[in-house]
Amino acid sequence: MAKGSYSPEGVFYPFPTEEENRKEEEIIKRITQEERKKGREIVAVQGLGFVGCIMAAVIADAVDKEGRSYYFVHGVQRPSARSFWKIPVINEGRPPVESTDKEVPEIFRRTVKEKKTLRATWHEKAYALADIVVVDIQLDAIKPELGRAEIGYCDTGAFQEAIRQLGRLIKPDCLVLVETTVPPGTCKNIVKPILEEEFTKRGIDINKYPPRIAHSYERVMPGANYVSSIRDFWRTYAGIDEDSAKRAEVFLKRVLNTEEYPLFCLGDTNASELAKTLENSFRATNIAFIYEWTLLAEAIGINLWEVVESIRVRPTHKNIMNPGLGVGGYCLTKDPILAHWAYKEIFKLKLANQDPVLEHWKSWEKFSEHVGLPISVESVNINDLMPLHTADLLQEAMGGDLKEKKVLILGASYLKDVGDTRHSPSEILWKTLEERGAILFVHDPLIKVWPEVPSAKVEKNIWESLRGKDALIFAVPHRQYLGLPPKKVIEAVGKPCVIIDAQNILKDKEIVEYLRLGCEVRGVGKGHIKYLKEQLKR
Amino acid sequence: MAKGSYSPEGVFYPFPTEEENRKEEEIIKRITQEERKKGREIVAVQGLGFVGCIMAAVIADAVDKEGRSYYFVHGVQRPSARSFWKIPVINEGRPPVESTDKEVPEIFRRTVKEKKTLRATWHEKAYALADIVVVDIQLDAIKPELGRAEIGYCDTGAFQEAIRQLGRLIKPDCLVLVETTVPPGTCKNIVKPILEEEFTKRGIDINKYPPRIAHSYERVMPGANYVSSIRDFWRTYAGIDEDSAKRAEVFLKRVLNTEEYPLFCLGDTNASELAKTLENSFRATNIAFIYEWTLLAEAIGINLWEVVESIRVRPTHKNIMNPGLGVGGYCLTKDPILAHWAYKEIFKLKLANQDPVLEHWKSWEKFSEHVGLPISVESVNINDLMPLHTADLLQEAMGGDLKEKKVLILGASYLKDVGDTRHSPSEILWKTLEERGAILFVHDPLIKVWPEVPSAKVEKNIWESLRGKDALIFAVPHRQYLGLPPKKVIEAVGKPCVIIDAQNILKDKEIVEYLRLGCEVRGVGKGHIKYLKEQLKR
Repeated sequence: MAKGSYSPEGVFYPFPTEEENRKEEEIIKRITQEERKKGREIVAVQGLGFVGCIMAAVIADAVDKEGRSYYFVHGVQRPSARSFWKIPVINEGRPPVESTDKEVPEIFRRTVKEKKTLRATWHEKAYALADIVVVDIQLDAIKPELGRAEIGYCDTGAFQEAIRQLGRLIKPDCLVLVETTVPPGTCKNIVKPILEEEFTKRGIDINKYPPRIAHSYERVMPGANYVSSIRDFWRTYAGIDEDSAKRAEVFLKRVLNTEEYPLFCLGDTNASELAKTLENSFRATNIAFIYEWTLLAEAIGINLWEVVESIRVRPTHKNIMNPGLGVGGYCLTKDPILAHWAYKEIFKLKLANQDPVLEHWKSWEKFSEHVGLPISVESVNINDLMPLHTADLLQEAMGGDLKEKKVLILGASYLKDVGDTRHSPSEILWKTLEERGAILFVHDPLIKVWPEVPSAKVEKNIWESLRGKDALIFAVPHRQYLGLPPKKVIEAVGKPCVIIDAQNILKDKEIVEYLRLGCEVRGVGKGHIKYLKEQLKR
Repeated sequence: MAKGSYSPEGVFYPFPTEEENRKEEEIIKRITQEERKKGREIVAVQGLGFVGCIMAAVIADAVDKEGRSYYFVHGVQRPSARSFWKIPVINEGRPPVESTDKEVPEIFRRTVKEKKTLRATWHEKAYALADIVVVDIQLDAIKPELGRAEIGYCDTGAFQEAIRQLGRLIKPDCLVLVETTVPPGTCKNIVKPILEEEFTKRGIDINKYPPRIAHSYERVMPGANYVSSIRDFWRTYAGIDEDSAKRAEVFLKRVLNTEEYPLFCLGDTNASELAKTLENSFRATNIAFIYEWTLLAEAIGINLWEVVESIRVRPTHKNIMNPGLGVGGYCLTKDPILAHWAYKEIFKLKLANQDPVLEHWKSWEKFSEHVGLPISVESVNINDLMPLHTADLLQEAMGGDLKEKKVLILGASYLKDVGDTRHSPSEILWKTLEERGAILFVHDPLIKVWPEVPSAKVEKNIWESLRGKDALIFAVPHRQYLGLPPKKVIEAVGKPCVIIDAQNILKDKEIVEYLRLGCEVRGVGKGHIKYLKEQLKR
């Protein structure tokens, strides 16, 4: 069987032969020469994932005041079964991601087909040709056990290998701009020594040519403003030395909209790396914070959604988070762990354990070994476990037993109106309900397959998906789920059923209608439903 | 010795005699009659503390479109040694609080002297005359031990007694508007049964005259916009029944600037009470969150202040908090405990202990009895203990021993440019350093005495206060402390000394100057000082 990669559309792309490898090297060399003659600098983007592919297009799209492109971009992707197909797809001028953002297909067409400033390749030789390499490879945190983020760790193996590859290939004065979210300390303690080691092996005098390294993190949001969230948003950066910082500044000013969104320079790559993990930990903590209040609100008959809305009028409290099913996505679920791990493993700090404030956390067994960042880490635990509460609401509403009950989960992605299922709380909900014996179904208008839950068949027709179910869980507030007429829903189901609203999708009058139709209704943070029920009885 | 009350200016006001009591009753009856004839409703404000006195003036200041005052206000204060003096002072048209807000003296002069719509009294008969009583008495949380907020509780004794007093006196249709921050459930579970009990004792049929109760919490900020923070800011309210909610709405619309800052009505007094404790817990948690990152930043040489500033450009992260000395004031230090206590004692909830998400907190001894609101409560602990970290920075900078060391704390209040010392973190710092054997001094431009630390003599001349000290701690970012020239400071001290910057008062060039002058410098969240020091050595 020929090895290769299937695109989501089902097209098979065989991996390149040695002959194709040789040809490809010639092609990228030739193109690079031609592009240099046009006065363009050469950028290689390492990794064409969610960030890398868009970043590559944004760099290729950048022009000076006369409309001349600054850069030619080699978008580099290893020939893996999961991702190799992206290369031919991009080179046809099509995006390797699905998105509701109309700019996504446009920017690939424009840069690949019109400007001809972007080309994807699998060949590592591209790094040798580049003036700047932008590192956009994944760096994951591993959570060996749900609810024990404190023992989570960072697997830097693949990341180190990718950096080593650069060290073997790049020109000595090439700027390595790390865009990946990394544990604080990575540029200084991992990237720099590896590059120095490889440079030295190549006979490069690292006193004369110290590796040029900078860090600048993106704040991407998949969704309707996907491209813009990379290009038109504030950026922080830092260089490992003055020269690196300066070159990063010039580059970022050319490719990003820094006139409207000025750059912020920090004095130290440690600081820039920490900033990213800090800002995502802040958000994760704010979500975890609301959970304990969700339980209180449910217990004492309060609609917490309304309370939070009332608090949000205060400018200082605008970002107070809603209750809900849980937290998903690639960042909030792991970034606190990256920093916690750096505390222990990169900086070897015991410090927090001796701190007079955090000392008492040691009395909690789970932190007895290392206190680190307890609030941030515990927030990850709370957020990871949060879907279990929705499972409990369902179980209670169904009289305690979920065995053989047909349950439809409405929404599998981690964000409303976005078809991204990475670390989705619906996944944890699914697995929890499966363990409890329920027969599960899922509907989501925005995804075709659910890679994290391969056993799930994603239904596309909402009305058909409702038929015969014992319970519906509104899990993601996709636009399609708002304002569904209860009568029509229950007609489609064919009988009164249990309705769980984990995301404030139902208005009070809709809840009352479901109750009138004989349904049991529960909602996360919606303790007031019991009063709506009492009022009906009168 | 005659019993009475000393004003902060040192004037002695003896408590009223029985004869004066009789006279006062006649006076308030007569005034009330006269005011009713003018078409004004009568409001009594119960408690003339930080909120009550300003609220009384704001109510008395409110006029309709023709400029006619809606209300006459009896500001009622018990004849206590601590507060009785406020009554004669207010009735002279002067404010009973010191403030940098120019509107404070103006509004008391205007309402007492010009409009004659505000009068203070000690006589409880005022409640019997009122159409609306606004409850502004204190309700404290008791923290028996520093760092163990989880065993904190709410002492409702005095509050219950005050409500009982209303029950004995008010007209059956009087609206009782609770403005005090109370544990969720207070209006329904404490205020209502007490009023019903007292009404019944008086022979009032509570089916015909159910007590009218509403809750609406203020968001006061002492400082330059003290009055405005009560009048010109968003308000949430809820009534115990429809009639109470309606009457609260009419009242609040008349006295507050609800055109610019619309009212928010919640369905339940539980919800309004919870909202206040929730929003302050949110803020307390956000401060506690930054603490663990402060330790990391210090350990790895990062200026966290700069990092936080860089993150704050994101609209979603605008309210991320700075590192610092700690948290003070009346609200953030206690409100999470009010809710935690309500969880246990008002609602008798064991629920959080059975929750699948919070269950693992039970493994931590301190929460084994009752989980409740662990993140919020633990945040109070972190914030309360935070000044110990500044004490540790000092001790380390002084070589480990503070015995007999002369230490000057610059700033005793809990907020910059405000002379309010309630629950100030400087107080915890003082007590900690005292225990460690330091000889302590304090300077603060905005306070005359420090009631919580009676042994402290508050120095008023900063240059004199510096003389001969071994260490200075910049504890509060009062305007006066910004930009002090290091050379002049050290000349005034008379020798190089230890400088601790707990509040980012020093710019980097000032830190460098202190280092050049031979000082040891440390700063909360300022790990980069070690690099500044290294750079100097080169």
